[in-house]
Amino acid sequence: MSERTIPYKLYLEENEIPKQWYNVRADMKIKPAPLLNPGTLQPLKAEELAPIFCDELIKQELDDDTAYVDIPEEIREYYKTFRPSPVMRAYNLEKALGTPAKIYYKFEGNNTSGSHKLNSALAQAYYAKKQGLKGVTTETGAGQWGTALSMASAYFGLDCKVFMVKVSYEQKPFRREVMRTYGASVTPSPSMETEVGRKILEAHPGTTGSLGCAISEAVEVATKNDGYRYVLGSVLNQVLLHQSIIGLEAKAALDKYNITPDIIIGCAGGGSNLGGLIAPFMGEKLRGEKDYRIIAVEPASCPSFTRGKFAYDFCDTGMICPLAKMYTLGSGFIPSPNHAGGLRFHGMSTILSQLYHDGYMEATSVEQTAVFEAAEKFARTEGILPAPESSHAIRAAMDEALKCKETGEEKTILFGLTGTGYFDMVAYEKFHNGEMNDYIPTDEDLAVGFAGIPRFEGNEF
Amino acid sequence: MSERTIPYKLYLEENEIPKQWYNVRADMKIKPAPLLNPGTLQPLKAEELAPIFCDELIKQELDDDTAYVDIPEEIREYYKTFRPSPVMRAYNLEKALGTPAKIYYKFEGNNTSGSHKLNSALAQAYYAKKQGLKGVTTETGAGQWGTALSMASAYFGLDCKVFMVKVSYEQKPFRREVMRTYGASVTPSPSMETEVGRKILEAHPGTTGSLGCAISEAVEVATKNDGYRYVLGSVLNQVLLHQSIIGLEAKAALDKYNITPDIIIGCAGGGSNLGGLIAPFMGEKLRGEKDYRIIAVEPASCPSFTRGKFAYDFCDTGMICPLAKMYTLGSGFIPSPNHAGGLRFHGMSTILSQLYHDGYMEATSVEQTAVFEAAEKFARTEGILPAPESSHAIRAAMDEALKCKETGEEKTILFGLTGTGYFDMVAYEKFHNGEMNDYIPTDEDLAVGFAGIPRFEGNEF
Repeated sequence: MSERTIPYKLYLEENEIPKQWYNVRADMKIKPAPLLNPGTLQPLKAEELAPIFCDELIKQELDDDTAYVDIPEEIREYYKTFRPSPVMRAYNLEKALGTPAKIYYKFEGNNTSGSHKLNSALAQAYYAKKQGLKGVTTETGAGQWGTALSMASAYFGLDCKVFMVKVSYEQKPFRREVMRTYGASVTPSPSMETEVGRKILEAHPGTTGSLGCAISEAVEVATKNDGYRYVLGSVLNQVLLHQSIIGLEAKAALDKYNITPDIIIGCAGGGSNLGGLIAPFMGEKLRGEKDYRIIAVEPASCPSFTRGKFAYDFCDTGMICPLAKMYTLGSGFIPSPNHAGGLRFHGMSTILSQLYHDGYMEATSVEQTAVFEAAEKFARTEGILPAPESSHAIRAAMDEALKCKETGEEKTILFGLTGTGYFDMVAYEKFHNGEMNDYIPTDEDLAVGFAGIPRFEGNEF
Repeated sequence: MSERTIPYKLYLEENEIPKQWYNVRADMKIKPAPLLNPGTLQPLKAEELAPIFCDELIKQELDDDTAYVDIPEEIREYYKTFRPSPVMRAYNLEKALGTPAKIYYKFEGNNTSGSHKLNSALAQAYYAKKQGLKGVTTETGAGQWGTALSMASAYFGLDCKVFMVKVSYEQKPFRREVMRTYGASVTPSPSMETEVGRKILEAHPGTTGSLGCAISEAVEVATKNDGYRYVLGSVLNQVLLHQSIIGLEAKAALDKYNITPDIIIGCAGGGSNLGGLIAPFMGEKLRGEKDYRIIAVEPASCPSFTRGKFAYDFCDTGMICPLAKMYTLGSGFIPSPNHAGGLRFHGMSTILSQLYHDGYMEATSVEQTAVFEAAEKFARTEGILPAPESSHAIRAAMDEALKCKETGEEKTILFGLTGTGYFDMVAYEKFHNGEMNDYIPTDEDLAVGFAGIPRFEGNEF
């Protein structure tokens, strides 16, 4: 064992943290479709987005051409406290599976937000502060994004108001206290604090909430209060830009040891982790320099890639946000309350949607008991207790590694371990007690969501 | 900022992980007093300990002379998945405090147990497996040790039975699920499963439990079941030996950058973290090669160093364990239920007790609201949400840094950040809601505990 040339952790040093983010859109021949104004159905201009988003972030959102964007020194300073994050070789998991495959994972969970979300939260809080704003509003599902934004807001001295999907708020009471430790206020959504919240509660009194609904509330509060803007932890182009640091670091670490992955796997909710992880690899693929198999993994109970429509749709339930062209289950789609694995968003990043549509990546869906089985196996072999979200990628990576066991192929697999599951023990408890089941929406269930996708010329699906 | 020569994280590589543990007893002129058989009051022999502890661990426990012990390759393999742990420069905290002091912390929280406890759990599980045992029993307070042992047992394929102090079991329901994820069974203590548990429940029906009591139960189960042994996460000499990896790594990282700490600070419950952190520094001090100020920090509500007696006492409430000469509040001492900061053990490592008694280190006690204030400040500046236990050291380090601000001295402070507080949000919630208070035992309260310390010739105090 001692003559191994590849260590457990592939090291990068502080001065090797990327100094620029990479914008994959610059290398896409077919760019993601622009956001549309839901009233005029025309592409949104920067000035229309200005009441919602920070100015610099709007620039990043709309910029399809600049390949590399400098990471401001102030953001890099904080990055240095928890980055570079390690690329780990899963020697113990490989051994337990008896696979000839070589499994690597980029582990983003070693910061208090428990996930990769902090990468973009810091960027968004920084630009808000730089613009002289008082505060930011946002939504959070599992709570990782809300925690990340709370941390970033505390660091840059911003007020932070979080709308938390009610089911998560109830299942994860301790997340609220973490956010409060960082000075944020947390409201379960839907709430009576907003017009859109009151409307939704009236129509669906017992609702457990959804990300789409929490987004609507956060946007309303941002636009109705001076000095506030809305920030979003996933889906948007700007978020994928910031998250490219995951892939850039992963690639730098692998390159250092002359490792080239055959398969790259990431879980996909709104797409922030997957988009970040694959960015530089996808860039090479788009430029025709190299080929990789790239796989998005989503829950069978919220299958936007594998069963959704590629169409313009609202990002929020209240239908006040711009229209985005993406794989979507309809903004009214709410996963079954049995669903415990995160990745609950009804849509998907427009960048990833376009790339998937154009055949640059695959998608697969997995059922949640199989996901928790993989999570437990991973915890017992690799030590790390994974987030349910991340465990979707673990499941797919294990399945690929087991295929290698059958064929004898020594493939190199890289997957994104987005975070830790310390705040997901209610879900783990369900799993331990045998109370977890695999609810998969029927075609009829999905039809209800699809019916809410707006119909207009050019939006056939 | 970019011309800094000291990075945020002081790096060590995998091949720089120490290959030997360091046994500070080898350099102590006055050795810690031996454990006594509570019946005969004679020093315990290895064969008397064999029904309780693993053979190899008994050897380590009784060996006052060997300075360096090889770390078995199997243990090193797992160490490589989460070690070296970083020594962090607290640039952001220094800035927030406006201090000229240079603050470093050795961060042991980046593993699923959430603390340094995994270092010794792996060693103890390994030796149990090597001896051909079926399983191990133990107690846990905050749950970090129980989680660590569950992880280690899962890795080496051992059965693991954990008695968890009832108050923690109730305050930290999710800890139980983490342990179950790793396949352990968890019982709230005192329980009806053991004789000693039933006795304690009869005498104190409403008790919230104590570490001493949980130890008694775990020892009883280990000695009454074939193929089981008891393992302990703190206090013992063997544990301090394993934990020396903290200090050895910290010293190696600091040496690499030519940094010499003036002050070394660690929180002290049973002494496992403090003993591990200071080991190589104390070695230099004992050998007269260098001088350091070394400070133990304990809760004002459980002040064994600062208000305890230096005497032979039981390590457990049931009084079935060996007698250890240590600073103790009496094995019957139970901290007030208001106490939320961990470090609840009534006694202290015999090694650290002797070193403190001989003037090689200082001790101070801090009140819990001040501890949580420090924790929050630390979280907001350094990002990491600290465990309440660790926050005792943060409090003391901040106080020393603030003294430097007054005097203008540029002292270098190293403290041990033993773990993260993700499972301590009930305590944080109390703090946020202003429901935390500073209960300090009166002399009369302490007298009750002292009355339980055994009286015999040579045990005057």
